[in-house]
Amino acid sequence: MRFPGVYAEHGVFVCFEGGEGSGKSTQSRLLHEALTARGHRVLLTFEPGDTAVGKDVRRIVLSPETGDLDDRTEALLFAADKAEHIESMVRPALERGEVVITDRYVDSMLAYQGAGRVLDAAQLEEVARWATADLRPHLTVLLDLDPTAGFTRFEERDRMEQESVEFHQRVREAFVELAKRNPDHYLVLDARAPVDEVHAAVLARLEPLLSQAVSA
Amino acid sequence: MRFPGVYAEHGVFVCFEGGEGSGKSTQSRLLHEALTARGHRVLLTFEPGDTAVGKDVRRIVLSPETGDLDDRTEALLFAADKAEHIESMVRPALERGEVVITDRYVDSMLAYQGAGRVLDAAQLEEVARWATADLRPHLTVLLDLDPTAGFTRFEERDRMEQESVEFHQRVREAFVELAKRNPDHYLVLDARAPVDEVHAAVLARLEPLLSQAVSA
Repeated sequence: MRFPGVYAEHGVFVCFEGGEGSGKSTQSRLLHEALTARGHRVLLTFEPGDTAVGKDVRRIVLSPETGDLDDRTEALLFAADKAEHIESMVRPALERGEVVITDRYVDSMLAYQGAGRVLDAAQLEEVARWATADLRPHLTVLLDLDPTAGFTRFEERDRMEQESVEFHQRVREAFVELAKRNPDHYLVLDARAPVDEVHAAVLARLEPLLSQAVSA
Repeated sequence: MRFPGVYAEHGVFVCFEGGEGSGKSTQSRLLHEALTARGHRVLLTFEPGDTAVGKDVRRIVLSPETGDLDDRTEALLFAADKAEHIESMVRPALERGEVVITDRYVDSMLAYQGAGRVLDAAQLEEVARWATADLRPHLTVLLDLDPTAGFTRFEERDRMEQESVEFHQRVREAFVELAKRNPDHYLVLDARAPVDEVHAAVLARLEPLLSQAVSA
């Protein structure tokens, strides 16, 4: 395989993935609180937009005012955000032995720009893996949800959320396929389960990995 | 070869490449005037920044206020500008049979981000070719110049121009190597030659290609 995946030797890299309204932010925050309370040093972060250049990219790709963008332009802007995020925030925190929790990562790009926009999956993955130097989460938690259940009112949606139901169905299927490819590093949970049940399942699965993380 | 190059069947795609102060803008403008006067429909354009999203990208990558960017972030932002430029401006004009003259294109990315920043050349080229769907200029005019001859005062330079002399030497050598790889589609000229001599040489080399261009 061309991109075998690189897993950090220090720290613990955890990612939450899923469609709109699947509870990624809530679960990220709960995990951050639980691990901090247990004495771990934890970085809670997100994509796109948690770096200076990422904020600009986020505004461009998510603002409805941007209008039409070529599919490759959009994918390359997301990839630029990822490159900066990994090199300036995620990798340094892992090297310090911290737990890094990110709300969205490469799978979101493969699902939204690959399956959603329908760009060639293999070529898009090459770009995404190059952008991130192929660094993979030790654990990706996929919060799986029927897309129609997660929608807010149309006027409140960003450029991605405004896409069709079919777009979001393809996104959901792509997330599930990515999890199947690499089950050792994925936990797929029903996003409709009670918040505390989901949180407990994440903590239980993460437990054996935490020996790699330093305490505060 | 993985990227054999795609040449448009309609229109004529001309690119000016070279370092800072090599006269690309002047020569682009003179060629635009000459071909327009001869009745051709001509699009004069440039990278980065001649689309709405490109303007944002240009501001990020060239403004000294941006400060440090990861090398891959910078390359991916340039690639995003190229994708949008090709799909929204260059390709439509070529399909209308026009002459497209661009001030900088893929070679600038390979020279500045590849040789200048020292990213893996083959991987970077994959990203650049993917961004542009491998569309190549029928003719690239390289205005070759010793980089120290083209420098303006440091305070007036953008983020690229502020790089070291060694950076710009590597950029120059990369441009020359790219021209050697594909001599049928390159014209290398001494940028210190008089402006009208350079212009005449460009026109002479372009002459046989113009039968592919429509008249206004």
